[in-house]
Amino acid sequence: MEYKDYKVWKIEVKNSVAWVTIDNPPVNLINMPFLEDMERFFNQVKADDDVKVIVFQSADPEIFISHFDVTALTDFPETPEPAAAELQGWKKYFMEFRTLPKVTIAKIEGIVGGGGNEFCLSLDMRFGAIEKAVFSQTEAAVGIIAGGGGTHWLTRLMGRSRALEAMLGLMPYSAKMAERYGWINRALPADKIGQFVEILANSIAYVSAETIAIVKRSVVVAEEMSRKEGLLEEGHLFAIAAGSGESKGRMNQALDAGLQTREMELGPKNRLEELKKLFGDNV
Amino acid sequence: MEYKDYKVWKIEVKNSVAWVTIDNPPVNLINMPFLEDMERFFNQVKADDDVKVIVFQSADPEIFISHFDVTALTDFPETPEPAAAELQGWKKYFMEFRTLPKVTIAKIEGIVGGGGNEFCLSLDMRFGAIEKAVFSQTEAAVGIIAGGGGTHWLTRLMGRSRALEAMLGLMPYSAKMAERYGWINRALPADKIGQFVEILANSIAYVSAETIAIVKRSVVVAEEMSRKEGLLEEGHLFAIAAGSGESKGRMNQALDAGLQTREMELGPKNRLEELKKLFGDNV
Amino acid sequence: MEYKDYKVWKIEVKNSVAWVTIDNPPVNLINMPFLEDMERFFNQVKADDDVKVIVFQSADPEIFISHFDVTALTDFPETPEPAAAELQGWKKYFMEFRTLPKVTIAKIEGIVGGGGNEFCLSLDMRFGAIEKAVFSQTEAAVGIIAGGGGTHWLTRLMGRSRALEAMLGLMPYSAKMAERYGWINRALPADKIGQFVEILANSIAYVSAETIAIVKRSVVVAEEMSRKEGLLEEGHLFAIAAGSGESKGRMNQALDAGLQTREMELGPKNRLEELKKLFGDNV
Repeated sequence: MEYKDYKVWKIEVKNSVAWVTIDNPPVNLINMPFLEDMERFFNQVKADDDVKVIVFQSADPEIFISHFDVTALTDFPETPEPAAAELQGWKKYFMEFRTLPKVTIAKIEGIVGGGGNEFCLSLDMRFGAIEKAVFSQTEAAVGIIAGGGGTHWLTRLMGRSRALEAMLGLMPYSAKMAERYGWINRALPADKIGQFVEILANSIAYVSAETIAIVKRSVVVAEEMSRKEGLLEEGHLFAIAAGSGESKGRMNQALDAGLQTREMELGPKNRLEELKKLFGDNV
Repeated sequence: MEYKDYKVWKIEVKNSVAWVTIDNPPVNLINMPFLEDMERFFNQVKADDDVKVIVFQSADPEIFISHFDVTALTDFPETPEPAAAELQGWKKYFMEFRTLPKVTIAKIEGIVGGGGNEFCLSLDMRFGAIEKAVFSQTEAAVGIIAGGGGTHWLTRLMGRSRALEAMLGLMPYSAKMAERYGWINRALPADKIGQFVEILANSIAYVSAETIAIVKRSVVVAEEMSRKEGLLEEGHLFAIAAGSGESKGRMNQALDAGLQTREMELGPKNRLEELKKLFGDNV
Repeated sequence: MEYKDYKVWKIEVKNSVAWVTIDNPPVNLINMPFLEDMERFFNQVKADDDVKVIVFQSADPEIFISHFDVTALTDFPETPEPAAAELQGWKKYFMEFRTLPKVTIAKIEGIVGGGGNEFCLSLDMRFGAIEKAVFSQTEAAVGIIAGGGGTHWLTRLMGRSRALEAMLGLMPYSAKMAERYGWINRALPADKIGQFVEILANSIAYVSAETIAIVKRSVVVAEEMSRKEGLLEEGHLFAIAAGSGESKGRMNQALDAGLQTREMELGPKNRLEELKKLFGDNV
């Protein structure tokens, strides 16, 4: 499938990974062209069986995504509508990333705030470049809130105390602090984050599309179902996964290759040593 | 509004921030005078539109709050009453801090344990001084439990494994370890924590009272509603916030000042550099 | 109670702590002998009033538990059964550790992955040896998922973003990274982890069996009940704990020994200094 004629996103697919470069000068604002590209991309990639992983990155070396276009927010009616019955528009797409049966990753190497940060929070994973990424969620300064899912995601990811600090303290956060708060998966040195995300994305793309879908479903189950119901459903998902012909092939191939021999079982330690050579204390 | 004739709390309001100094020698115990001051303060500050942020600190350089007065706990009936229908007394106030439309902060520069720690957990944010703050939750040593909300807060903030360790291991935790466990927002050098909390409190006080109330409400929504219902309610809260005249004024003022120009959008990076000069790796 | 004639587990009880050494060469696989020992041990220890704490360790210096025996997984039917109505077999025991009124601890000094990691996740606490423990959850590589509770525990402990990374990224994690992700309670130097876990286990064993049971129950309450219902139940559990004769004895003993005097209340700071001498920055 070809991804062309996007306005402010550039999309390249390589080895089942879609690399999306956001290029919306001068400050990578979330404005109409951004949202149109997002909606179009979401619907296109959803139907693209060749894509298993989507990585978002920025063409701007200093700014990942600034925030939502504030000029579009100044004419809300003084008497608000009651809560809607269904999520709509861009917020709907933000939330649908959560259940999309593909893995979405933000590689954040610059400033990200407001709605830009909410976009990142709605993706599956976030990595931040040390000394370059700067995180903030400062809508409160201008009287609004993180209404694109930010209040939800921050509270779930980092707990109420850190979420309130982030949303009301009007402070910027370094990549390392963002990792400590659970805002991002991990902070990585700026000269290593590209290599790390590439290894991770290709590693995920080694997993079959069916298994990726089942693992994402299992996390949604863990988040949404009661404990007992969820654990029973997890067993059912396991049975679906284990019963597939491809899985049996992969298991038998691994056994033939020496799985469960001592040499093979020491593999993770050796792999960790390799990764330490590349990424030091960041693995 | 004046806050005078408190017994063991001293309250000073400056720039919409109430600084509450706990001064209950010899060990800052939670006893009747403490609880009477708390109840009185809670009801007074609730109605005080001039206060947006409340910071708790200790007059004792070594002890923040020791714990609940154990002499009051030794005459519980052997046959316990069934669970009550409503929270009562001090536990009710502990929990009402959670929904109070003002921000509460504990600046912890000494030992805090038992009910003192539960008091801190019931506030919105906690900061701990490195080498001075010491956290513990060791009721189990004398056969009781963290019944003032501690079992709830610790489990939510740090997960079951660390909560069980904290409540059954009878160990003290340094500020840095408390940060790593999610027990506090952040550990800060003892000679910097005062300045940090002052910057943070004043920064929050820059936010309008209405917006603070809506952000706190949005976190309660994220904690209590189902995902879908909560996200729809977040949209409604956003519309309330964005529709207010003050918010429109703030947004337009920010746009006039250059919001969405490149120079302005690089602001968070510059602000982070300033904060790094003050607080090093702690931002 | 004697624990003898186990096949691949060796059990020694000392000061109310059961030390279970897993010794299932060549790679400490979870196979039928392991599961038979687990079921037998669970039912025996459940009825053993002399045991308050259970510590799991490995006889293999490089491998804690490798994973579930994959040869047992290759014959799942292609058409999966619907979700079961009740947890069964080993998964039932994994989950019953959660509510067992004793504390379970994994002292992980080697490689642990797959079902071995799920076994650890189902215990109350996990500690990992720096430079020796290696964590992974890579079932997805062979087309299956962490169906022994892993998708549940990882999502709860570290949030959706890190859980998805762990389950789909096929990467190994060091003990320090595992601590940062919330996968384990704490990483400790390899030459100190034994002493640390021994101090912790003995410290927990100082708590009465009744109090341990009530604290574990209170965490289950915090996880499962709604906030209000849970807080009311916490009050009820507190009343049960405080009303017991043993608790009154322990409280009065502590008061007689000087509790609430300044000297005694500075105890946690002194204890932390002692622990720092042993464990440096790891307390």
